[in-house]
Amino acid sequence: MSGLDVNTELLERLLVGFIQDEIYKVGFTRGIIALSGGIDSSTVTYLAKRALGPENVMAVIMPYKTSNPQSREDALVVVNELGINYRELEITPMIDSYFAIFPDADNIRRGNKMARERMTILYDQSVEWGALVIGTSNKTELLLGYGTLFGDMASAINPLGDIYKTQVRQLARHLGVPERIIGKKPSADLWLGQTDEGELGFTYEDVDRLLHLMVDERYSLDELIDAGFAENFVLKVHEKVRSSQYKRRLPVIAKVSKRTIDRDFRYARDWGR
Amino acid sequence: MSGLDVNTELLERLLVGFIQDEIYKVGFTRGIIALSGGIDSSTVTYLAKRALGPENVMAVIMPYKTSNPQSREDALVVVNELGINYRELEITPMIDSYFAIFPDADNIRRGNKMARERMTILYDQSVEWGALVIGTSNKTELLLGYGTLFGDMASAINPLGDIYKTQVRQLARHLGVPERIIGKKPSADLWLGQTDEGELGFTYEDVDRLLHLMVDERYSLDELIDAGFAENFVLKVHEKVRSSQYKRRLPVIAKVSKRTIDRDFRYARDWGR
Repeated sequence: MSGLDVNTELLERLLVGFIQDEIYKVGFTRGIIALSGGIDSSTVTYLAKRALGPENVMAVIMPYKTSNPQSREDALVVVNELGINYRELEITPMIDSYFAIFPDADNIRRGNKMARERMTILYDQSVEWGALVIGTSNKTELLLGYGTLFGDMASAINPLGDIYKTQVRQLARHLGVPERIIGKKPSADLWLGQTDEGELGFTYEDVDRLLHLMVDERYSLDELIDAGFAENFVLKVHEKVRSSQYKRRLPVIAKVSKRTIDRDFRYARDWGR
Repeated sequence: MSGLDVNTELLERLLVGFIQDEIYKVGFTRGIIALSGGIDSSTVTYLAKRALGPENVMAVIMPYKTSNPQSREDALVVVNELGINYRELEITPMIDSYFAIFPDADNIRRGNKMARERMTILYDQSVEWGALVIGTSNKTELLLGYGTLFGDMASAINPLGDIYKTQVRQLARHLGVPERIIGKKPSADLWLGQTDEGELGFTYEDVDRLLHLMVDERYSLDELIDAGFAENFVLKVHEKVRSSQYKRRLPVIAKVSKRTIDRDFRYARDWGR
């Protein structure tokens, strides 16, 4: 798994610089993060504190009534460890008043609605506090489409979007994220007993090795099978990556003019700065 | 204003084909639209009905307690005229339970939260009904950044994103959208008495002429002033376009690998179909 080993010292420097650049050049000094108490959002919070200083970082903790209480405790450990600002806002009243109309909605619908509710709150708080939203999706999740579009996938800048889950673990350890957070089973905590690996049907170790060869090293499906991955695993993951591409693109606009947004009109976000 | 005159017959054919293509090729047959009763969402609903058939179109009407009752009535006129499906879901309970915590929040914060709440409901209903979300943002709004990111700007496909507001009016007339909808003052209806033109400080007629020359014809600022536009109007609009670019791009990811999402990994949304 050497292709996934990272130089954590260098990676920290790159990502701290990225957060500073992207926030300062658009005239901001502050960053705001939805802190779940999981490894991804904790790692981002550690990076943001080093980049911006603790007084310029806000963690928003947004539990639902069925969230694991350990998630909130872990988030508070991070907040206290780093000395950053935080706000706690329960999403239960908003979520429950919606699903009172649809009592039979399944866990997937409820989970997506919660992820999007958190986004709406995070963006509201970002305006109120004058901060940019720092996202927490990692490369594994983004490639598998294992996230909610316009929910946890929404942000202004994303430091972890090019870093696989198993690489996030290496970085987290280097940054001093508490072992109780690094060591627990990854979970979106959208329902009781949910774990990422249980839901996906494979481990992050395995899928990261596969994705790295598939995406970064551009192995063909045959080459991946030759490299020792089971055919059904290769096909399953490839199909997840392909079919979730819509989550990694902007809405598609019907082109009818000379210059169309996201087609011929594609400046960088900080165009003219 | 000849550059803004459209061949409505041809435009209708193009957009109906666009909706069919984009929905059918990803294995769907249905479209779902947030129908406010305004000209943009009404026009999209007329197009969707022609593209997919009335039985495959769902309008979701989502009033807030302070919404103008005429908006809802106009939406119902469209639904009845076209014989499509509809659902009505009040957003008041969800919005009010959030702002109970922030009673002093201003209209901008409330308006953005409402736009995003509607997105979360529209996406939930789209999964429940098995439909793709058809967006309703026009080119004028998108270029000015006059919309809520991850709110009304969120969709799967957007037929009007390359069509200026004054062109939408021409198309709406051609499609037979009721004159009571075409003729009323455009408003996001997020608070009482809000009108787009009042808030923006200029008319759609004027800004569309300017944007067309600025964006599609690539006039420089000097050339726009030479063409007869007031300097402060040119500068104000140019600044709106520039500073809202972040709303027209995906979250920016720190590049640390060989192949980064939205940089080197940029397939079309329907890749492999």
